[in-house]
Amino acid sequence: MINIVLLGTGNVATHLFRLFQKSENLRVKQVYNHSPESLIGFRESSRTTTSLEELEDADIYCLALKDDVIGDVSRKLPKSNALVVHTSGAASIDILKNQDRAGVFYPLQTFSKNRELAYPELPVCLEANFPEDLELLKRLSREISAKPYLINSPQRKRMHLAAVFVCNFVNHLYGIGNHICQENEIPFEVLLPLIKETAKKVENSSPFEVQTGPAIRNDRTTVKAHLDLLNNNQHKEIYQLLTKAIQNTHGKKL
Amino acid sequence: MINIVLLGTGNVATHLFRLFQKSENLRVKQVYNHSPESLIGFRESSRTTTSLEELEDADIYCLALKDDVIGDVSRKLPKSNALVVHTSGAASIDILKNQDRAGVFYPLQTFSKNRELAYPELPVCLEANFPEDLELLKRLSREISAKPYLINSPQRKRMHLAAVFVCNFVNHLYGIGNHICQENEIPFEVLLPLIKETAKKVENSSPFEVQTGPAIRNDRTTVKAHLDLLNNNQHKEIYQLLTKAIQNTHGKKL
Repeated sequence: MINIVLLGTGNVATHLFRLFQKSENLRVKQVYNHSPESLIGFRESSRTTTSLEELEDADIYCLALKDDVIGDVSRKLPKSNALVVHTSGAASIDILKNQDRAGVFYPLQTFSKNRELAYPELPVCLEANFPEDLELLKRLSREISAKPYLINSPQRKRMHLAAVFVCNFVNHLYGIGNHICQENEIPFEVLLPLIKETAKKVENSSPFEVQTGPAIRNDRTTVKAHLDLLNNNQHKEIYQLLTKAIQNTHGKKL
Repeated sequence: MINIVLLGTGNVATHLFRLFQKSENLRVKQVYNHSPESLIGFRESSRTTTSLEELEDADIYCLALKDDVIGDVSRKLPKSNALVVHTSGAASIDILKNQDRAGVFYPLQTFSKNRELAYPELPVCLEANFPEDLELLKRLSREISAKPYLINSPQRKRMHLAAVFVCNFVNHLYGIGNHICQENEIPFEVLLPLIKETAKKVENSSPFEVQTGPAIRNDRTTVKAHLDLLNNNQHKEIYQLLTKAIQNTHGKKL
């Protein structure tokens, strides 16, 4: 049995809580947050506290907190022999430097509170100062059917950066597509199979190898027509920059 | 039985050919292309020709050609009573104005020649000058298990524009993510579940509603750290522009 105290009640904390609860070999002993309201959803199935001084003993303190408070909370943790991990993509393991046993347990996924993850494979990036702690984090990953990757802090920061491109920025482009559809009374669902296939293609192919579209075809007529259609200056700027980027990457020139 | 003459041998033509062949109620009588080499793959299962003058009679001439030759080929077609359609997202139906019975059969998908489509639902945008021709195109859609949408030429152009954002530009962002992974010896596969979930989220939610990441959180520390990590100026420019765009869209300001 791995005993866990979970600190935080945001998206990541909520999803980890659900995943931890599904395993018979994990027990969330306690959930901490400074605000009592945010603990309401957790009270039925776990003890909760708003005070760091009242934290119970555990094998793992899991700090699923905003980056800018991780260090502060870590310093205020009660003295214990537990493994202390944070779940951040951007923060280094060194932010926990006051802990003897520090680690990182970073689930690489986009979490929404009111959405269950639809598939079992969740990549988790692990880091720890001691080999035994790495083993403990691997066990924790297995218990929630996650796929562990050993990723050090400099790599993890860059992976988080890559994730911003393939998730946050991609979602903004979906939003622009949706906006164009709405403006022209086209159902957005027409685009969904294309969105799905575009995501699926890169499972087996390198993205730059499967690039398609007017930019890589050097199809000036279509690019010009598209720019004329765009009445939103920001969308136009994005269209121009990404067209240029595709052409630079693939050695074409409009 | 619907008899089809297919003009073109590119990605779209190749996929349509395969789909048409799967249906018992469709017959591809002939495939045309000006270059004999490109017809090799089609010869086994259909008659082929490199001469527009040799085109056989059919119910539908399907012009799966590059935008800039559609009009020209249409004018050179032998006189017949067939329905003449093109398969382009960007070209208007008017490009076929010399035809009595003109139409559009635009499958909205990203096609790669050596990749089978993995799911049955292919959206097809239909347009025709006569109601009976629209019915014929709907029948054609059903025969290949495609989902028909009635979309007029101005809408189709804008849908094609939206597709560039959600497919071609998105794929370029996947490429940047892949590049960052390669540079740092991180397996790209770690990002695949995130890519999949990001695409899946917008099936049920409006993209702007599920936007996440440092830009919308107004997390200046992470944005600054990411910009410092980016050593490629083009990637930096894209990061800055999309961060600004997300913040403008959601009323935040760094």
